[in-house]
Amino acid sequence: MKTAKISIVGFGSIGAGLATEMARKKDFLRGKGYDLRVVSIVDADGAEIDEDGLNIKSIIEKKERGKAFSYDKSALDLIGEIDQDILVECTPSNIRDGNPGLNHILTSLKNRVNVVTSNKGPLVVAYKRIMETAKKNNVSIGYEATVGGAIPLINLVKSNLRADDIVAVKGILNGTCNYILTKMHVEKRDYEEILLEAKEIGIAETDASYDVEGIDTASKLVILANSLMGMDVKYEDVEVEGITRITPESLDLADELGCTIKLIGEVEREGKRLKVSPKLVPYDHPISVGGTLNIVLIKTDVAGEVTISGKGAGPKETSSALLSDILNIVDERC
Amino acid sequence: MKTAKISIVGFGSIGAGLATEMARKKDFLRGKGYDLRVVSIVDADGAEIDEDGLNIKSIIEKKERGKAFSYDKSALDLIGEIDQDILVECTPSNIRDGNPGLNHILTSLKNRVNVVTSNKGPLVVAYKRIMETAKKNNVSIGYEATVGGAIPLINLVKSNLRADDIVAVKGILNGTCNYILTKMHVEKRDYEEILLEAKEIGIAETDASYDVEGIDTASKLVILANSLMGMDVKYEDVEVEGITRITPESLDLADELGCTIKLIGEVEREGKRLKVSPKLVPYDHPISVGGTLNIVLIKTDVAGEVTISGKGAGPKETSSALLSDILNIVDERC
Repeated sequence: MKTAKISIVGFGSIGAGLATEMARKKDFLRGKGYDLRVVSIVDADGAEIDEDGLNIKSIIEKKERGKAFSYDKSALDLIGEIDQDILVECTPSNIRDGNPGLNHILTSLKNRVNVVTSNKGPLVVAYKRIMETAKKNNVSIGYEATVGGAIPLINLVKSNLRADDIVAVKGILNGTCNYILTKMHVEKRDYEEILLEAKEIGIAETDASYDVEGIDTASKLVILANSLMGMDVKYEDVEVEGITRITPESLDLADELGCTIKLIGEVEREGKRLKVSPKLVPYDHPISVGGTLNIVLIKTDVAGEVTISGKGAGPKETSSALLSDILNIVDERC
Repeated sequence: MKTAKISIVGFGSIGAGLATEMARKKDFLRGKGYDLRVVSIVDADGAEIDEDGLNIKSIIEKKERGKAFSYDKSALDLIGEIDQDILVECTPSNIRDGNPGLNHILTSLKNRVNVVTSNKGPLVVAYKRIMETAKKNNVSIGYEATVGGAIPLINLVKSNLRADDIVAVKGILNGTCNYILTKMHVEKRDYEEILLEAKEIGIAETDASYDVEGIDTASKLVILANSLMGMDVKYEDVEVEGITRITPESLDLADELGCTIKLIGEVEREGKRLKVSPKLVPYDHPISVGGTLNIVLIKTDVAGEVTISGKGAGPKETSSALLSDILNIVDERC
């Protein structure tokens, strides 16, 4: 049995979702030879600590009842104090300076603690610095969950298209935009109306600008370009246009051409071109998926075009990516 | 630089395709730290051997000019004689008794030589025996290329959906059938007519029964059930119906329902149900891909539904899967 001590930093929907899945799948994971223990959970309200493994259920109940955590400690306090193998960073994403996630990740790596994260910000702002810090300290960082939610995209390319040269990557990387465009097309209704509905049912956030203006898609594109194509690009290198100016009329025109409109992120090796923009996509094109689905088409020199799709968000689905990264690190390092 | 000595058994389109890609990508692979040397190539016509690495180009030219190989040796002769790290088995598939591939694979594993294969037969006939033999002799076997050509499906589930429990797998696993059904639907023409055309352009073999009767799809399904879902099933456990009785009229009826007809292979954990049959697939369903494409939908308890598609056949595309398996083994064993 391989044992790993895990700390979770950020206990919002993603962090709590991961903890819940780890508790639910305890026996399944033990059956595969893994004993994963959550030894600390920390967020803005303080921390819970138990080096023998926390009782997740009671902590989630405590949180739901609005009770404060037991210890008045920050993530940075705990990185130095607690004996842990992997720190899971799931604080909210910030693509301006990457913090607080970037600080957590770098401090953790420098303390020779492996990191798994769902937080895009740090990787958009400082991909190279993070990778160099991990290498220098002989620890690993897994970030499958930063792009495409449950879709095992990054590890797919890194582990399973290993002899392939990635020529281009393009796809639908934001479920909120895909939901809005799909609804506008099918129901022939206005952008504003659908956006309001999406907010009501929780598919869009109250401030949806991060999604609808293409910022989220562009952030993911930067991570894909740097990690899968060996580039060294920043957010500023992406040409970004969102979906706010799409009208039902433009969707009708697309329909006449046998197409729909999707917000597509694309990066091409040649000319280092990174672009996010609404594009005409023929109905029968492999990347024409609807609803909140995400999809990515990877173009390589040997395999040709490989397309992978799945749920791009959701606490449970994102746990699949976080847990897969965790198990890979346990195998490699623990 | 990691060096690996590779033997290729079976020098038809797949074996020659792999050798060609290895030669073409020599610098790319060296840049990634791999020095892969083909030390022997053997088929029914004899063998070529050079422990320092064969000149692939001259061997392919020799073969094309109809010249015999230099040594009158069989694969089994070479397994004992040559110093090699990985044997790549690409002889034609035989799902009755798995031979000659099964014999090559088992002998190789018993000689502590790792195996990578594109040959379905041995895995359909003796999956459990092969895995046990590999484990007992502390060597690896990679078989990504047996299902879905360039689609990195098996390793995707094994490496990147590691904490997920696979509940069901379904998809389009035979490009020839998909091509015929797509053509019949779009052009409203007879099965026999399209089949003849497919044979002329090389998409169907002269004896297409293996494809059109669903035998190929069922074989792949057995491999997926055993390897991804921990089952212990044989070809006889699959209920199989092919596409030979599909008429343009049935496709018209499907069209009226907003559907097309696809040959679907599906396996469900519950009840251990394995089935290959023509099914109605709505146009907007994620697995509705056309032409010669293959696609697989994997249903799991955590990630939900993940779909992956790509080219299901072709010497070059299959090389992507073979090479990825080779590099994984080099990292693990060499």
